[in-house]
Amino acid sequence: MQERKLPATLRFMLAARRSELLRLEDLSQTCALVTRISQLVHALQKERGYSNLYLSSQATHLRPRLESLSQAAASLEHELRAALEEIDQNDLGAAEKTRLFTRIAHALHLLDELPALRRRILDRRTSAQDATATLARLIGSLLAVVFEAADSAVDPDITRCLVALFNFMQGKELAGQERALGVAGFACGYFVEEQLERLNHLQECQERSFSTFSRFASEAATQQWQALCASASNLQACRLREIARSTHAKAKLDTQLGELWFELHTQRIDLMQGIESQLEQELLQCCQLGMQRIRQELHSHRRVLENLSDLQHHEEQARLFSVHSSELDSPPADGLSSNLARSTLDLLQHQAQRLQVMQDELREARQALEERKLVERAKQLLIRQQGYNESEAYAWLRQAAMNQGLQLEEVAQRLLTTSTENPSAQPRARLRH
Amino acid sequence: MQERKLPATLRFMLAARRSELLRLEDLSQTCALVTRISQLVHALQKERGYSNLYLSSQATHLRPRLESLSQAAASLEHELRAALEEIDQNDLGAAEKTRLFTRIAHALHLLDELPALRRRILDRRTSAQDATATLARLIGSLLAVVFEAADSAVDPDITRCLVALFNFMQGKELAGQERALGVAGFACGYFVEEQLERLNHLQECQERSFSTFSRFASEAATQQWQALCASASNLQACRLREIARSTHAKAKLDTQLGELWFELHTQRIDLMQGIESQLEQELLQCCQLGMQRIRQELHSHRRVLENLSDLQHHEEQARLFSVHSSELDSPPADGLSSNLARSTLDLLQHQAQRLQVMQDELREARQALEERKLVERAKQLLIRQQGYNESEAYAWLRQAAMNQGLQLEEVAQRLLTTSTENPSAQPRARLRH
Repeated sequence: MQERKLPATLRFMLAARRSELLRLEDLSQTCALVTRISQLVHALQKERGYSNLYLSSQATHLRPRLESLSQAAASLEHELRAALEEIDQNDLGAAEKTRLFTRIAHALHLLDELPALRRRILDRRTSAQDATATLARLIGSLLAVVFEAADSAVDPDITRCLVALFNFMQGKELAGQERALGVAGFACGYFVEEQLERLNHLQECQERSFSTFSRFASEAATQQWQALCASASNLQACRLREIARSTHAKAKLDTQLGELWFELHTQRIDLMQGIESQLEQELLQCCQLGMQRIRQELHSHRRVLENLSDLQHHEEQARLFSVHSSELDSPPADGLSSNLARSTLDLLQHQAQRLQVMQDELREARQALEERKLVERAKQLLIRQQGYNESEAYAWLRQAAMNQGLQLEEVAQRLLTTSTENPSAQPRARLRH
Repeated sequence: MQERKLPATLRFMLAARRSELLRLEDLSQTCALVTRISQLVHALQKERGYSNLYLSSQATHLRPRLESLSQAAASLEHELRAALEEIDQNDLGAAEKTRLFTRIAHALHLLDELPALRRRILDRRTSAQDATATLARLIGSLLAVVFEAADSAVDPDITRCLVALFNFMQGKELAGQERALGVAGFACGYFVEEQLERLNHLQECQERSFSTFSRFASEAATQQWQALCASASNLQACRLREIARSTHAKAKLDTQLGELWFELHTQRIDLMQGIESQLEQELLQCCQLGMQRIRQELHSHRRVLENLSDLQHHEEQARLFSVHSSELDSPPADGLSSNLARSTLDLLQHQAQRLQVMQDELREARQALEERKLVERAKQLLIRQQGYNESEAYAWLRQAAMNQGLQLEEVAQRLLTTSTENPSAQPRARLRH
């Protein structure tokens, strides 16, 4: 191998770049998986929506449509599983796959139970609420895979794409849950207090997700999002939200509004899918560009280093035949000569600076994931320790943030820190802000 | 392969653990490299100390001792290079090696120039100050490899060991630089203002390093450190520091004190090496234990999963031959049966929790590295933008921290943030606190 001839310094410089390329190729495979997951999630959301309609009414005409949606999701699941088989068979290398694989195992575990759920739905042996909850859990587990992929990505551009995509998927999933909740409410003719709280919670969390998405998304995706927000179906959907908020047991609505709600929210979610596809394409493109760039750099890097190495060889040769220079004032024969040394150092410093910039950018993009993790964990803590439901836990955090003039994630951080330091003595009184 | 028979869920659970093991094995190899580097650094520190003595005096009797110290260092360098060859030839996998390899390339580059420096020293063609500075740069580049190893380690226990070792090495290196500075000062009979400032700086940074070391070190290492602090040679060395501080051009000292200074500080540094060896051993032990634990867990994990899989198989078989249960109230045949599902879920949740705890611990240990990086980068920024030297930059940060009632790293963070946002317009006035 020609590289063997290079001095160790130069060989390690090349190996550093090669390692970067390998890591990117690996990441690119994960991103391909993420786009498959994104498509499966969309199919499952559609299936969930129709399952809900099917279970909420006695109408049998919905059954064929539901079955075809199930089939579409099953076929995407099949493709995802085939892609997973590929990964499984590959050599693991020493890359960090532990968390990603644990998430995948969890998602697969829930997917394993999907056929049974589908049968119960078709046979009407489950409630719309239970079916929705089970499918939401499954979709949540798939989103967790995307989150982990974003959290373990090492390229700042790709991480930004993944953070944008994850947040968009999360927002869209919350929109799906909102649609389901609305269907249930309008079916009764009004919303009870708890449903309204949950509706608020879902809307706030959607806003949070889409605002994070906007921070990391491309110009094109952001414009598509703004167009969606200004679209007629979105504005009408918002108006129906207001109507939902004004209902109570004594102010019932025409249950027909439920169908309009479903239709408008479905249009809204379908528009979202267009943006999701855009984000998927951008992600894959970003991987391609990144690999292309490193391959080119690696190629030119190798050429530069080989030239450096040749230069060293020639200078040494020149010295051997030189009779003019005395031992004392000639450049030292050991190691690289000074010109060469300077070029090598320049290359190294350039590489180190580039890595530093990458690290900073990466930290910035991961910050958004870190904040989400904190809020999620604080919510879980409140649910466990205080017996709150999810909306209540979120409302508590938001209120505490307002009272203390802090960011949501700062409150979450403080809550978690106190709890870790003193896990048993978490006085309920203190928790009331 | 037997694993092929397991359902995909269980296979991914196993793959997650296997990935953890591979990653740990890889880390263990890096740690072995770190201990070699630690030993080479010690030898180079000794060589630097004697080079200094040799260059500061005209005494020729020091030359044989110096040559033998150079040889000792060269032989450790040779072993390190051989170990690096091994790594270089290994498959890279997809692990993050880019930063580590860039650091290694830089260290190798400076090592390449060492033979020439040695010749200049023996021939007295360089000043003590220049030789010290060049060797300090080389040692700094080796410390940077250890830092990077610590920063990319994925196991919290091992990261803690590496953080303790890195900070101890850093403190010891500063002690070595202090020794060199003292030798120069006592040789003149007094210290000029700039030397005294630098002496303060070296002592403060030592304290910072050793205090971080203490936070992450084992009980045994901490006790050894406390014993060192209470040792006679350390106390005497501290007294000589006070004497150094009281000197000026009109209050010269007996230059013989320089030899005492050298001897006491050498004893102090030799004691440090004992602790360093302890830390090296603990690090390697920690790697061994970690791998052993995961191997055992992987083994029992595999057994549990295979049992789960068998169970599934049996339950499916049982169902096939059962004539009692009707299709409707029997558990669904698809996917895992509910008992099995619960066991799988338990295992998954256990694994996810363990990973969460590891992540938290890892973040905590890395925080110390992050803080150091911030302070270093802020210092470099001040040096670049304000023309300060290192001591001045550090003094500026410390003063700013005191004035604003902040931690050093918080000031560093603010300085870097402002500078990134507005790289060109960094008003000198604002920098004066």
